[in-house]
Amino acid sequence: MSTPSSLESLIKALRCLPGIGPKSAQRMAYHLLQHDRSGASSLADALQHALGALRHCQRCNTFTEADICERCLSGKRDASLLCVVETPVDMNMMEQTHAYAGLYYVLIGRVSPLDGIGPRELQLDQLLARACDGVVQEVILATNFTNEGEVTAHYLAEMLRSRAIRVSRIARGVPVGGELEYVDAGTLAQAVRERRSLT
Amino acid sequence: MSTPSSLESLIKALRCLPGIGPKSAQRMAYHLLQHDRSGASSLADALQHALGALRHCQRCNTFTEADICERCLSGKRDASLLCVVETPVDMNMMEQTHAYAGLYYVLIGRVSPLDGIGPRELQLDQLLARACDGVVQEVILATNFTNEGEVTAHYLAEMLRSRAIRVSRIARGVPVGGELEYVDAGTLAQAVRERRSLT
Repeated sequence: MSTPSSLESLIKALRCLPGIGPKSAQRMAYHLLQHDRSGASSLADALQHALGALRHCQRCNTFTEADICERCLSGKRDASLLCVVETPVDMNMMEQTHAYAGLYYVLIGRVSPLDGIGPRELQLDQLLARACDGVVQEVILATNFTNEGEVTAHYLAEMLRSRAIRVSRIARGVPVGGELEYVDAGTLAQAVRERRSLT
Repeated sequence: MSTPSSLESLIKALRCLPGIGPKSAQRMAYHLLQHDRSGASSLADALQHALGALRHCQRCNTFTEADICERCLSGKRDASLLCVVETPVDMNMMEQTHAYAGLYYVLIGRVSPLDGIGPRELQLDQLLARACDGVVQEVILATNFTNEGEVTAHYLAEMLRSRAIRVSRIARGVPVGGELEYVDAGTLAQAVRERRSLT
């Protein structure tokens, strides 16, 4: 007299979603079955279609339906700039700023010794080959300002500088609209250390 | 140079899940594609299988793969007791107590005038027919102790009492393990009003 097996399988399958525990999965399953059967059906189709259609771009690693993504193929982007980010989401965030018109390289990860991800696991040869192709003039490191992101940036900077490639790091400091009173000491310390001279 | 359409469809489809906004949906989509493609595939299958296999039990309204659920067909349950709950999840909670061996009726909802759900929308005829079948001796109202649940219980009690059916409501009071210091005044007031005499 337990839950029907197909319902139990659905609850279990929903737990593959990040941040969804047994209670939420149960709530989601009942919600879909009771109130949104068409939504559930669309979700199943969308999952299957996305799994079939999406792969990594051969040049920048982001998700694309073709071999090489639209952005890498576009003639309108500045190919001399290469921005390195950790994930496709980070790339989207950069794009939303409209402040960058170069190309990207998505690491799909970061150096994280605790998780057993070293420089080798990130397959940085592809990035190195790309950076040394003669077209790229500057590599902009836009990994996160977390410990892992910083370690990754440090490692990449060393690696690229030894090959005489210009490397830069996006700026760290007080956020736009930020008040000094509420900024943490570490951020403020960096903002002082990395101050810009006003001419 | 936007998100590929299959990825966008997946993000949109994930928003049918309760409590999932655009940011979470994006995070889920990238997580599935990057780290758990087999989980995503299982989820798609589980959704389609559940949609095809699950329907409402003709007697108690819960989800089942047959016409009538195992519990309703079981000879081991006390058919003279009928417990009315709002949702299949509430029924599971009741079952987990192991304190009830009767049968159930799941309303799949509650009286909620603000959402336009009156007694008519809940299709209470089926419940009434069930309660008046001659087998049921007592109807136990186990709707939530929210405003809507209380209104529903009140309405059901009136409806059933007018047909001379014995009606009861699950007890309200201080939770097991509860300390008076931390119980809200409303609960404590009810606990005093509905005190039991100890013989």
